[in-house]
Amino acid sequence: MLALAGIPLGLRFRFLDPAPDACAGTVGELVTGELDDVDAARRVATGAAAVTYEWEGVPAATAHAAAKVAPLAPPAAALDVAQDRLAEKELFAQLGIATARFAAVDDRVSFARAVAEIGLPAVVKTRRGGYDGKGQAVLRDAADVEAAWQALGGVPLIVEAFVAFDRELSVVAVRGRDGTTASWPVGENEHRDGILRATRAPALDLDPAQHGRAEHLAHAVLDTLDYVGVVCVELFEVDGELLANELAPRVHNSGHWTIEGAETSQFENHLRAALGWPLGSTRARGVAAMVNCIGVLPAPSAVAAIAGAHLHDYGKAPRPGRKVGHVTVTAADDAELAPRLAAVERAIT
Amino acid sequence: MLALAGIPLGLRFRFLDPAPDACAGTVGELVTGELDDVDAARRVATGAAAVTYEWEGVPAATAHAAAKVAPLAPPAAALDVAQDRLAEKELFAQLGIATARFAAVDDRVSFARAVAEIGLPAVVKTRRGGYDGKGQAVLRDAADVEAAWQALGGVPLIVEAFVAFDRELSVVAVRGRDGTTASWPVGENEHRDGILRATRAPALDLDPAQHGRAEHLAHAVLDTLDYVGVVCVELFEVDGELLANELAPRVHNSGHWTIEGAETSQFENHLRAALGWPLGSTRARGVAAMVNCIGVLPAPSAVAAIAGAHLHDYGKAPRPGRKVGHVTVTAADDAELAPRLAAVERAIT
Repeated sequence: MLALAGIPLGLRFRFLDPAPDACAGTVGELVTGELDDVDAARRVATGAAAVTYEWEGVPAATAHAAAKVAPLAPPAAALDVAQDRLAEKELFAQLGIATARFAAVDDRVSFARAVAEIGLPAVVKTRRGGYDGKGQAVLRDAADVEAAWQALGGVPLIVEAFVAFDRELSVVAVRGRDGTTASWPVGENEHRDGILRATRAPALDLDPAQHGRAEHLAHAVLDTLDYVGVVCVELFEVDGELLANELAPRVHNSGHWTIEGAETSQFENHLRAALGWPLGSTRARGVAAMVNCIGVLPAPSAVAAIAGAHLHDYGKAPRPGRKVGHVTVTAADDAELAPRLAAVERAIT
Repeated sequence: MLALAGIPLGLRFRFLDPAPDACAGTVGELVTGELDDVDAARRVATGAAAVTYEWEGVPAATAHAAAKVAPLAPPAAALDVAQDRLAEKELFAQLGIATARFAAVDDRVSFARAVAEIGLPAVVKTRRGGYDGKGQAVLRDAADVEAAWQALGGVPLIVEAFVAFDRELSVVAVRGRDGTTASWPVGENEHRDGILRATRAPALDLDPAQHGRAEHLAHAVLDTLDYVGVVCVELFEVDGELLANELAPRVHNSGHWTIEGAETSQFENHLRAALGWPLGSTRARGVAAMVNCIGVLPAPSAVAAIAGAHLHDYGKAPRPGRKVGHVTVTAADDAELAPRLAAVERAIT
């Protein structure tokens, strides 16, 4: 999607991917290599005007090697923070951004202490490497605590207070090389089995003051990291308060709706930022919802039959639990969106 | 642009192009071959769900050969008509669509007769092979007539009454495999040195009845040719009347604004039609203007600085008179569009 946004701008792309049949090969030059293959990363970055990543699990050594060959955006510091849930929470705390209460865990003793301090229910997560609900467990009683230690112990962990949130929100924001920041209307996420199922933007009935706070905290994160490119900050809304959950230093699934739903997509603005170009307007065009296709895709002609629906087939082989595409549906207003979104949900099931 | 529209729909593309460095190679498999290389055309079409063309100069033999291997859209009959200005005018006449008065020319004698019949001023055009103002001459006096014969004589010609039109309009329309038709808001074209310079859509202050007539005549053309895909019919508006000038059986430069300016672009709907999928809405999102980049491109960052502006760099080598890209600028209304369009014009010149 970055390449599809960039090709009309005259940009050409080279990708590093472990899979020789990676879908990026359709729209650019594919260098096959593991993500910890520092030499491959250097080859990919050589001659480039900018280098970026679209997964926060990219090894720091790879990012640093690429950054020596071409300007890296977002900066390596953002990767460092996003790769460690403790560093992430500490960054939020340092900026005065509310989060769930948390405690670091390094061993069995500090795990017991953290659970005692935070109280139950709580969530324990690996500090590194978790995504889409993997590498975490909910702790409701002593048995859960023991089971979680068996499953996750041995690597650095973090225990967080369980937040019975009303909903999850996403603020997708961007910062240019000149320090200009902008953000798209805050979206509202729905998860299923720990995987993002749908995003609706703008979030329904979000208090404008809350919206302003979400933007403000995202921009504070961008500024403090001297960030360049798109970031996503996931927030919990609970009893009218916002708690920052995590940040993703990249274009994000909850911002995919911006391709059709905003004047400039997250992909185009990420490229503009990385290249030092002026950012485009992040204003929404009407309302939009994005529904992920998980495991399988709907028939393209079935999606084409739904007014305002736009299929994005990633060209990936179907596999249970894999995000193989998404459908964005746009409309002038909520009343027009509702039946369209219902039809998309039926087509995707 | 067809491939960029189709890749998200899960489509993959194979192209026939005489140039080994053709820009289509960025987004699909490129088969290098002359357009009259019937074997190459067969290879390109083999295994395809559909085959199309984006130039009406494609030799009929090539189109027919490809059509035997995969469903061809638009149909070969549309190519036959579009390749002969006389057949084109006769089709319009047969459908009761007004045109400039015209007369066929096969030799010096019929040329003189045609000029006498149509009167001066007139325009003489080669029946085949002309585009972007090439292969035609304006006849104002006897000297022009003689010079035109020296320049163009020897091939079949057509003489048309010179139309002092108020403006040129474009109606871009589409017909699906099931016979459904739709059209985008009529655009208004501005030429410079015989080359399309800009399109504005919707056309300013177009009488709704006129708009309806333009749509109606385009749909009549589509139906009579049992057409599948996008067509463009260029019209002259003169003293409140519409005269059909020519048709292009393909996605058209005057429809490029639909990428950002309409709910579904001409490119996506052309693909949907060719594949037998339901067509998408052709409704405009606000107002839009498209300005061609002829010979050279503006700096991408200069375009990025203009609100609502979207650069399309075709990845072609700069060359005088060559369309190497375009910029579309969108806005909520005419008042917002005007300063943006002025800024685009300044950036491009």
